[in-house]
Amino acid sequence: MKFKKQIASLKAYQPGKTSDEVQKMYNLDKVTKLASNENPYGASPKVKEYLNNIDIDFAIYPDGHASKLRTAVAKHLNVSENQLLFGNGSDENILIVSRAILEPGLNTVVADLTFGQYKHNAVVEGAEVRVVPLLENGAHDLDKMAEVVDENTAIVWVCNPNNPTGTLIPSDEIKDFVEKVPSDVLIVLDEAYTEYITDDTYEDSLGLLKKHPNVLIMRTFSKAYGLASFRVGYAIGSEEVIGQLEPTREPFNNTVLSQEVAIIGLADQAFIAECKVKNNAGKQQFETYCKERNLNFFPSHTNFILMEVKADSDVVFQGLMERGFIVRSGNALGSPGYLRITIGTEQQNTELLQKLDEVLREEGVI
Amino acid sequence: MKFKKQIASLKAYQPGKTSDEVQKMYNLDKVTKLASNENPYGASPKVKEYLNNIDIDFAIYPDGHASKLRTAVAKHLNVSENQLLFGNGSDENILIVSRAILEPGLNTVVADLTFGQYKHNAVVEGAEVRVVPLLENGAHDLDKMAEVVDENTAIVWVCNPNNPTGTLIPSDEIKDFVEKVPSDVLIVLDEAYTEYITDDTYEDSLGLLKKHPNVLIMRTFSKAYGLASFRVGYAIGSEEVIGQLEPTREPFNNTVLSQEVAIIGLADQAFIAECKVKNNAGKQQFETYCKERNLNFFPSHTNFILMEVKADSDVVFQGLMERGFIVRSGNALGSPGYLRITIGTEQQNTELLQKLDEVLREEGVI
Repeated sequence: MKFKKQIASLKAYQPGKTSDEVQKMYNLDKVTKLASNENPYGASPKVKEYLNNIDIDFAIYPDGHASKLRTAVAKHLNVSENQLLFGNGSDENILIVSRAILEPGLNTVVADLTFGQYKHNAVVEGAEVRVVPLLENGAHDLDKMAEVVDENTAIVWVCNPNNPTGTLIPSDEIKDFVEKVPSDVLIVLDEAYTEYITDDTYEDSLGLLKKHPNVLIMRTFSKAYGLASFRVGYAIGSEEVIGQLEPTREPFNNTVLSQEVAIIGLADQAFIAECKVKNNAGKQQFETYCKERNLNFFPSHTNFILMEVKADSDVVFQGLMERGFIVRSGNALGSPGYLRITIGTEQQNTELLQKLDEVLREEGVI
Repeated sequence: MKFKKQIASLKAYQPGKTSDEVQKMYNLDKVTKLASNENPYGASPKVKEYLNNIDIDFAIYPDGHASKLRTAVAKHLNVSENQLLFGNGSDENILIVSRAILEPGLNTVVADLTFGQYKHNAVVEGAEVRVVPLLENGAHDLDKMAEVVDENTAIVWVCNPNNPTGTLIPSDEIKDFVEKVPSDVLIVLDEAYTEYITDDTYEDSLGLLKKHPNVLIMRTFSKAYGLASFRVGYAIGSEEVIGQLEPTREPFNNTVLSQEVAIIGLADQAFIAECKVKNNAGKQQFETYCKERNLNFFPSHTNFILMEVKADSDVVFQGLMERGFIVRSGNALGSPGYLRITIGTEQQNTELLQKLDEVLREEGVI
């Protein structure tokens, strides 16, 4: 078969151990997964209420235009309905953008470390990937990223706040960057964690769209909204850009229930506000822990924290797993010596940090 | 922005009118949609039962490996788990295959008329599309398709039974074709309607896989299983081909509920058997109608029928819509003078054919 040459270099998704598997393997009473930045408070309770009383014909295809969800999101953000693209998670929006634009001869600029799907999709499309290391504080090096842009640069990816460091780029720096990058380069601002930002100086990037039709903002229902199981991401851009992306979107990419529950989740902003407050308190638990034990961490504007363990990440990851906590090893994320931990409920955090103390003691770190 | 040149020639999905819109527009008591080959009997009742008693955490990402569904489908088909690829509908599997293989300089062979997504995805990838007209009986012209294959042919698409004609290619002709096509060409057999086939001479194409690792079979939960709203399609191939396709699959492409309900649907084979019998009876209603009015039709092995109306398809489509029935105009499918109608319940068919009589009388056809 004539598979694209570049595909051979790519790895398929490797499923991690499920909570059930870990529970059986280590004979645990319970397993807490704080590995994928999911919302530990679940989703709006109205979602379950909806499903329990459901009365729809499952045989009917979804509305390919996501009309009702489109109207709801447009109203919520005060943008036009034609400025929205709905994907099967932001994963799919990244695919759509990459597939519509990237090809051999073009290049794309990404940070290192950042979310892996930007690079993965660029490789599939055969485009050159220009990687710019993060600043020491974990933020994107926007000056350097602007510098490596040339006439063949098609997309620049800015993950803000960044995964896996959790760092936020100040709004004025984003503005300067957008002014600097040529207007024929698509600037993607991936804001999957935007609902968690508490920084007073942060300005909503939607304000950039009017002057800069080459900016595309990506957001999702998978994090703060607690709807990762339903896979709904959305992109907000100029009508021109969205119009060009639409033909590469598969026509029925969001399930009927996904569209319905996203509307319900969006309407329950009180739930989001509550999760934000609780998340911020949970973040303090981790920061206090790190400070007391002299472990480095990146100041996070998200629902996860990248923190130092002063030991082999995989060993600490394994020690936590055996004690019933699944987190992400920094080794898997390109950040050896660190763990990325989703901020859980107060009790989950307390229990996890007790177990972490046990592991770090075993490793002679503390 | 540097959008791929070929994207400019593509149209985005144009949403048709929903049943609600048609109901309001023409002030109708009810609207019956027989346009998208959905199962008029819905899905297994066990699906609704499951959702009404659901107790899962929606905040958690799907199992990206679809492990439980994978095990269930592998067992049902008696294939290895590594021979399966799960997509967000067959639409996504067509995308995955096209994206993994097609590029400028390669070509792909498709029938005309057939399902539009093969060509659409080939255009996105910049590959040449070699179109081979159907035989007069609505079947693929496999001899001609084999003839146009050359050293740059990467994929041949065979939709069997074919959409929109509903015709079935005899199993021995498929076998001959597969023997004839070079082994480095991927042969996709899209069998979305396979559960509806009643032809005694039909042999399950799964038997081809052992000798021909370049065959990939696509099936779906969107048609007979009545789960179109959940978007689950699957491809069955050699482990070699599936392994090369996996890296271009987005890791969390099926929702949690989609995986769960597909398992439930698969387990209820009594429901499928019942739908098959009813569908066959419904097909007779249409065939009898056509014969009595001297209208041509293609013998269908699916849950839809492509039938002549001896008038402008759009006018007849409009006349039916105003009377509360949404079908597909042949004009939209490349088959002017015809309608493609999903076979509904006995009563739906009876009512629709009465309305069709009215419209055809107005048009002076009968």
